[in-house]
Amino acid sequence: MASFRGRSIVSIRDMSLEDLDMIVRTTEAVKGGKYSGFLRGKTVATLFFEPSTRTRLSFESAVCKGGGSVFGIADPAASSQSKGETFADSIRTVSGYCDVMVIRHPVEGAARMASELCSIPVINAGDGANQHPTQTFLDLFTIKEQLGRLSGLRVGMMGDLKYGRTVHSLTHALSMFGNELTFISPPTLKMPDHILAELQGTGLSFRTVDNLEDAAGAGLDILYVTRIQKERFGDPQEYGKVAGTYRIDRDTVRMLGEDIRIMHPLPRVDEIDEQVDATPNAIYFVQAHNGIPTRQALLGLVTGGIE
Amino acid sequence: MASFRGRSIVSIRDMSLEDLDMIVRTTEAVKGGKYSGFLRGKTVATLFFEPSTRTRLSFESAVCKGGGSVFGIADPAASSQSKGETFADSIRTVSGYCDVMVIRHPVEGAARMASELCSIPVINAGDGANQHPTQTFLDLFTIKEQLGRLSGLRVGMMGDLKYGRTVHSLTHALSMFGNELTFISPPTLKMPDHILAELQGTGLSFRTVDNLEDAAGAGLDILYVTRIQKERFGDPQEYGKVAGTYRIDRDTVRMLGEDIRIMHPLPRVDEIDEQVDATPNAIYFVQAHNGIPTRQALLGLVTGGIE
Amino acid sequence: MASFRGRSIVSIRDMSLEDLDMIVRTTEAVKGGKYSGFLRGKTVATLFFEPSTRTRLSFESAVCKGGGSVFGIADPAASSQSKGETFADSIRTVSGYCDVMVIRHPVEGAARMASELCSIPVINAGDGANQHPTQTFLDLFTIKEQLGRLSGLRVGMMGDLKYGRTVHSLTHALSMFGNELTFISPPTLKMPDHILAELQGTGLSFRTVDNLEDAAGAGLDILYVTRIQKERFGDPQEYGKVAGTYRIDRDTVRMLGEDIRIMHPLPRVDEIDEQVDATPNAIYFVQAHNGIPTRQALLGLVTGGIE
Repeated sequence: MASFRGRSIVSIRDMSLEDLDMIVRTTEAVKGGKYSGFLRGKTVATLFFEPSTRTRLSFESAVCKGGGSVFGIADPAASSQSKGETFADSIRTVSGYCDVMVIRHPVEGAARMASELCSIPVINAGDGANQHPTQTFLDLFTIKEQLGRLSGLRVGMMGDLKYGRTVHSLTHALSMFGNELTFISPPTLKMPDHILAELQGTGLSFRTVDNLEDAAGAGLDILYVTRIQKERFGDPQEYGKVAGTYRIDRDTVRMLGEDIRIMHPLPRVDEIDEQVDATPNAIYFVQAHNGIPTRQALLGLVTGGIE
Repeated sequence: MASFRGRSIVSIRDMSLEDLDMIVRTTEAVKGGKYSGFLRGKTVATLFFEPSTRTRLSFESAVCKGGGSVFGIADPAASSQSKGETFADSIRTVSGYCDVMVIRHPVEGAARMASELCSIPVINAGDGANQHPTQTFLDLFTIKEQLGRLSGLRVGMMGDLKYGRTVHSLTHALSMFGNELTFISPPTLKMPDHILAELQGTGLSFRTVDNLEDAAGAGLDILYVTRIQKERFGDPQEYGKVAGTYRIDRDTVRMLGEDIRIMHPLPRVDEIDEQVDATPNAIYFVQAHNGIPTRQALLGLVTGGIE
Repeated sequence: MASFRGRSIVSIRDMSLEDLDMIVRTTEAVKGGKYSGFLRGKTVATLFFEPSTRTRLSFESAVCKGGGSVFGIADPAASSQSKGETFADSIRTVSGYCDVMVIRHPVEGAARMASELCSIPVINAGDGANQHPTQTFLDLFTIKEQLGRLSGLRVGMMGDLKYGRTVHSLTHALSMFGNELTFISPPTLKMPDHILAELQGTGLSFRTVDNLEDAAGAGLDILYVTRIQKERFGDPQEYGKVAGTYRIDRDTVRMLGEDIRIMHPLPRVDEIDEQVDATPNAIYFVQAHNGIPTRQALLGLVTGGIE
């Protein structure tokens, strides 16, 4: 395993099994209170060229909790890019202002490009429909924390599997650890063929179904729910029909079994009924809160504050 | 008196006399330099779903001066609520990122709802036309600091007494301490009947007048001025006439007596002539600056950093 | 030399030669690691009533690196000025929240006015087309760092010399130290007569040319390039012709000599070809990064944290 010190975190596809394991174990240690002040004297810039409350606030909280300082852009309209400056020049300049740069950008590849332009670590906080690796790290940590292991699990993923970068990355990571996957989606939002092909190459068993009833038979340990976006449908009636079908309520939870854990990257709109929140099956808020120790761990690792 | 540790601060109506007294005394101690570093290691999220420079900056300054860290939303447009997430989900998520949440929201009851959704203390920094309790705390502290006591004072309140949440809350608080109130407003912007009825129940004497000359006879110790908003009037001429009458200049101050103290929650537009600023009667900037020790005290109390 | 403690930094024209020398020497010491934690316990408000990523982030970074705390306004739309409050009242209020105020404002004279309204130091981070003194400080520091001295240099300034506040201030400062200046611009964007007249008064030699070939003969040590804004031209073709002529690429650099240093206040649009970036002649990113130690030094001096 390469050391994390000075390393940019751009894509889940750059990570070895040992890397992922290291991040999960460091997160456990951070959450357990083993480290403190590991970002003391460090400055982190959060550059959000696309709005995102959740991700930005959780990075900022992580920096503060690690004892570091944070500043940045929350609103792209307030940036020099309105003066015609290139993204590359903005990155080159700001790289001299801080020890780590956290970037969200609407264009795929933006974080990779940034990491190649500067000598400090860049953390990808989402580049368009492409990658959002820290979401996957916190998903993995949550699974480990809640189920005790990262392999040999039966995991269902439901909703928009075609466009959802979260489920694409998680699929890749869970296949590395050796898990059995069930993909549940309407036919129009199926997991892309290239991902299925890749999965086939691993030799792991997986299946695709188009309704929850079929998935229930699989005895899932985890159901990972994602939002189905209205914008994907030309016909509002079609959307309504689909959205109604891929919706979790107490009855669905009961059907899936009392040990099922429901995850969701949030924000949700109405794909999980609020009644589910109070059940022990709902772990999506724990999952969201795990964004803090996960990002603390990562910032500690790339700055060398945690080794 | 209940301890403040872990407690949400939503409405002045939740506070006992002992509570208010505790906040004022703690503010005195903070301003006197008794405490330092009492927010060390604490993180505070400032969630402003409605713009407000003054209140947001003063909370952020208070956190910094107490040794804590602060991050948040200054602009609701940059939030996940644009993705259709409910306010409740936003609050549940962010509550896992910080030790205290400071919320301003345009909807009445938003802060109360937030306080019921999460286990960390929530401080209401204004919910629509409803409550803005920290404004009242700093008003009380300023009165105590400038006049030496919180009871037995003759206090005039002038301007828009119908819609002004500041004067409603201050009326409630001053009546708890036992003070004599004079309400000065145009007939269309009178203090609401339910507040007058409540005041009658306390047995304290008060009166309502519609011009400053009548109020002057009362020998006021304090005149609390508020802005009359143009939007309240259909007819611009009517607004002009009213605004001209309820305006403080050097002559008015002289008429009210040399010991009168002029307060204002700010921002002012033109209801106090700038010539008054330099007089010893003007205490509105001291009042604004007292927002810092007041909010420091409160944050210290609810986090347990000050006990 | 007056002490910097408590002093506002509004215009390069307020600075003596000793002042500039002190700032450059303090910046050297800060960059060399001589001071740390000199802003501990200090709070700085960054009030940007006009967007600017680069300047705002570099001030915020400087505060963090000095151990201080920073908060502020990044977006004027989120401010109380939308409620009709005067700039003066905003400044009076916020001056009670912090130890130093950094202000950018679209109106000339805004920073001066602010400095006269309050008792804490105000740092001008740009007031319209007028002044941006910290840019000049970092330019001077960069010249000293890269060329070893601040006098006896042959400096060319190219581009929009008519409207560019950066080149106006730098001209003033470089003339104080005794340097030979060459002004290179299209006839319509010449250095204003009042600045040339002032320069004539100093007895220093200078010249104005309208193309780089003529300037090359002067054996320049430094070429300071600025952006030519499209908006200055009624006719887009005219702009195209001019912009094409005042553009630096590898050939131009070769023509200017292998020791030439290219500076630019950034952001650049296309007035310097990206191929130049990798040459040892390009010092504009070093220059941008020097904004941090320069602003650290200045904040340390005005707060008394560095003496």
